[in-house]
Amino acid sequence: MRIGVVSRIDVEESIKLTDKIVEFLLKRNIEILLENDVVDKLKKYEELSCPLEEMEADIIIAVGGDGTILRTQRFISSKKIPLLGINMGTVGFLTEIDPENTFESLEQVLNDDFFQETRTQLQIQHNQKQQTALNEVVIMTRKPAKMLHIEISVDEEVVEELRADGLIIATPSGSTAYSMSAGGPIVDPRVGGFVIVPICPFKLGSRPTVVPDNSEIKVKLLREGKKAMAVIDGQSEEEINYMDEIIFTKSEDHAIFVRLTKDFYRRVREKLIKGGIC
Amino acid sequence: MRIGVVSRIDVEESIKLTDKIVEFLLKRNIEILLENDVVDKLKKYEELSCPLEEMEADIIIAVGGDGTILRTQRFISSKKIPLLGINMGTVGFLTEIDPENTFESLEQVLNDDFFQETRTQLQIQHNQKQQTALNEVVIMTRKPAKMLHIEISVDEEVVEELRADGLIIATPSGSTAYSMSAGGPIVDPRVGGFVIVPICPFKLGSRPTVVPDNSEIKVKLLREGKKAMAVIDGQSEEEINYMDEIIFTKSEDHAIFVRLTKDFYRRVREKLIKGGIC
Amino acid sequence: MRIGVVSRIDVEESIKLTDKIVEFLLKRNIEILLENDVVDKLKKYEELSCPLEEMEADIIIAVGGDGTILRTQRFISSKKIPLLGINMGTVGFLTEIDPENTFESLEQVLNDDFFQETRTQLQIQHNQKQQTALNEVVIMTRKPAKMLHIEISVDEEVVEELRADGLIIATPSGSTAYSMSAGGPIVDPRVGGFVIVPICPFKLGSRPTVVPDNSEIKVKLLREGKKAMAVIDGQSEEEINYMDEIIFTKSEDHAIFVRLTKDFYRRVREKLIKGGIC
Amino acid sequence: MRIGVVSRIDVEESIKLTDKIVEFLLKRNIEILLENDVVDKLKKYEELSCPLEEMEADIIIAVGGDGTILRTQRFISSKKIPLLGINMGTVGFLTEIDPENTFESLEQVLNDDFFQETRTQLQIQHNQKQQTALNEVVIMTRKPAKMLHIEISVDEEVVEELRADGLIIATPSGSTAYSMSAGGPIVDPRVGGFVIVPICPFKLGSRPTVVPDNSEIKVKLLREGKKAMAVIDGQSEEEINYMDEIIFTKSEDHAIFVRLTKDFYRRVREKLIKGGIC
Repeated sequence: MRIGVVSRIDVEESIKLTDKIVEFLLKRNIEILLENDVVDKLKKYEELSCPLEEMEADIIIAVGGDGTILRTQRFISSKKIPLLGINMGTVGFLTEIDPENTFESLEQVLNDDFFQETRTQLQIQHNQKQQTALNEVVIMTRKPAKMLHIEISVDEEVVEELRADGLIIATPSGSTAYSMSAGGPIVDPRVGGFVIVPICPFKLGSRPTVVPDNSEIKVKLLREGKKAMAVIDGQSEEEINYMDEIIFTKSEDHAIFVRLTKDFYRRVREKLIKGGIC
Repeated sequence: MRIGVVSRIDVEESIKLTDKIVEFLLKRNIEILLENDVVDKLKKYEELSCPLEEMEADIIIAVGGDGTILRTQRFISSKKIPLLGINMGTVGFLTEIDPENTFESLEQVLNDDFFQETRTQLQIQHNQKQQTALNEVVIMTRKPAKMLHIEISVDEEVVEELRADGLIIATPSGSTAYSMSAGGPIVDPRVGGFVIVPICPFKLGSRPTVVPDNSEIKVKLLREGKKAMAVIDGQSEEEINYMDEIIFTKSEDHAIFVRLTKDFYRRVREKLIKGGIC
Repeated sequence: MRIGVVSRIDVEESIKLTDKIVEFLLKRNIEILLENDVVDKLKKYEELSCPLEEMEADIIIAVGGDGTILRTQRFISSKKIPLLGINMGTVGFLTEIDPENTFESLEQVLNDDFFQETRTQLQIQHNQKQQTALNEVVIMTRKPAKMLHIEISVDEEVVEELRADGLIIATPSGSTAYSMSAGGPIVDPRVGGFVIVPICPFKLGSRPTVVPDNSEIKVKLLREGKKAMAVIDGQSEEEINYMDEIIFTKSEDHAIFVRLTKDFYRRVREKLIKGGIC
Repeated sequence: MRIGVVSRIDVEESIKLTDKIVEFLLKRNIEILLENDVVDKLKKYEELSCPLEEMEADIIIAVGGDGTILRTQRFISSKKIPLLGINMGTVGFLTEIDPENTFESLEQVLNDDFFQETRTQLQIQHNQKQQTALNEVVIMTRKPAKMLHIEISVDEEVVEELRADGLIIATPSGSTAYSMSAGGPIVDPRVGGFVIVPICPFKLGSRPTVVPDNSEIKVKLLREGKKAMAVIDGQSEEEINYMDEIIFTKSEDHAIFVRLTKDFYRRVREKLIKGGIC
């Protein structure tokens, strides 16, 4: 068994816990690939060093918050590697383990006492380039406080001409993230749908829409002279120009999470309360 | 071919249009069953008179608004009869034809130039009794301005303990009806989901939730001494007592609508604007 | 100094605390008027017994939640008696003291170490009858799940023809109560305004409106054959008929609260969190 | 009588109408100051040319939408010049006249048959610099899709620690502009209050708050390393740094509008519908 280990490096506790996790795994003679930035920070384990984009492992452990999970997932999206998140952030909807339970949970995972949950991802196509999003794509103006003017279609049928600060296209996983702040519903990950949520729409009655995840969502920028951008999972940005089309479909690659328990709603409730969201 | 004809009888124009429709169909030698209340109102066509609950037809034409469609659908739910709505109401999301297009549309239908759209329905189980809802079930207190205290579970997992004025469980068809007034999202009818929407929740951060339509939703009244009721499609009421459980699943019976065009989003947009909703 | 004591009698802890408060005040030779229902429940202090409507006192202590405060205020509205609430409810926006601080706070009050905060009230005029509301008036249909159709005017100018489940007219005090569940803003009690909040409006873009508290708000029922009711502070009900007018103005009588601290926003924040509202 | 004339110059119709207005006024021997950019565009009336910042007039006519009014008001804020807006934009809440009524309305104004409405403005103080806003100040991150972390105080009392995409502080005039898109209430201009509205707050239960307009609102940036900006009336920007304080109070200078009719609510209703907002 080979385990990859990834961590956010801007938080002292993450680095420390990661150090202990590596130690724990080494004692069990597990083969480890440790993210190179973490190696640099820890100044040890150089023999384990591996860039995230080259990590081939049976499981990857990510120490951090949802941002760390999203960053990791970007690189392993097509590799079908199960991801286990240890929550060092404030909310951590995508993480599975709280730091205090790290080692008993790892024991459980090493004993193969876990199951895998797959989560739908979005595929974004723009300018011949394809990317994958686990949570959401946010489309917004390059200049703040200026409105977007866009056309949204689903399966070649126009849904709405929207004037708004921005637009979110979210997966069920992303429905409890930024989409929720903008007024979107919680979507059970077993529902085959994506949510389209306008941000501060000009038309006051505009509503979030849930569309089938096997449909093709198309977004077109209508206003000349105005640039916009697409922010993918809060990790990367794409510039969008006048009359550009961005096409959203279900990705062929699922995200795979290591889960120790099955209950989705308890998790959501706990994270919402713990994170001070609700 | 046998066609059933149903109409709201409290609006003069509906009755008049229904009269013309019967005349139109008789000229084409179509066998007609005319709702007995309409016969009473029109004081003719007594030989065609048929109570709604006994109507066996290849198609039923319903003249009125969404209320008329919902009332009709209640009686034919298990009979798989396609329903064609002619809109005499203010909004008419469930209707297909505007009055001014009645006869060319009927011609089209008689020429078999239409398709059938099936819509998911909810099955409600309470006290050994089963009912079907096309749009939604609303659970609310018997006394206005008092809060409900209920527990919502999905597939035996508790989703939320809710204190609110009420709760809506809606199908995709119902997502553009009352559910939307309470803040619920628009759900494309092709999405396999139901929406759970709290009405004026005590907890300000409570959000609508979209759950898979193959799950079992259970609602339990938690507060002793308080009665509640379930209003089904705005048509019928059920009293709910302390610790009663109401179980919602997908009905085996779909509603079937006669459609002349396929575009869902254009229809929604037009109805929202025409009805002065958005 | 004469102190009135009022309590909710359906909660054991309220009755017990009230008993201790009376004992505490008697030891200090304070003249006491004790609500007759409490006397009946405690089966002692019969010589102190006084119906709420006859209570003439320098201060009234109310043990309970906001409901108890609202019930008490109804009877003393025109008497300018300062009210001190001890919170035995879940939220208690209108109460000042938590039970664990009762006696040191009472000591402080007896030493005249407090200030009085006045709060604006609504005057409701309907059918030659006048009533006062501290928090809000809710107008809703007599039959649940049916829409109201009303006309709202401010200073003889029509604001909106509204179709909705109901309508709330709230004072700043009421802005953190039911009005907030329906989507209304928090209004600082120093703002000279009332909030008009539609409940589940048919028109999706309908918004809460803040109007000057020296204006006259008029609500008229537009739909024949439909009755509605006005619920005043959740305490009493008025039936409203077709074309009835209800007129809302600022009451000449303020509510007066005994306060030990001045900070409004800290109080709101604490109550929201403690009550599990936000 | 001296009249200033200002216009947006990016819309052909505005320029044309402005040309006709100047002609109309010249015929009546009115002294005119014409914005220099308009003179450049029209290539005539050079003798009337005057930069906006130097315009001293009895009335200024602004041809354009709310943007033109806001741009003009910035320059004349301390001069107490009544402003008459002619609506060439989509909504034009701040404008008084529709283009088709221009000349009869001007006739009325020249006959002194109008009244003046004053509107409260915000004063913003930041880094020793003072500015005035008629509608609102929006505080947001410099990088989109990143959250602000700020502390809001009113009269030295902390109201909230907010994590959100942004924050709006709006006057009653601004309550029907951007603030409304973010969920803020409509505030009658006679109400002495400002609205504080979070944009996509992390905490789902966060609500708009109406505070007295004679209070001091303070906003402080809490997160080190993150810059933010304040956008004033959509016209100008200020960079905000870590621990900077921005202080909002009521400006001593009111905006003054030339009005032909008094009805606020009819105006709002018409503009909302005409602009396709509601």
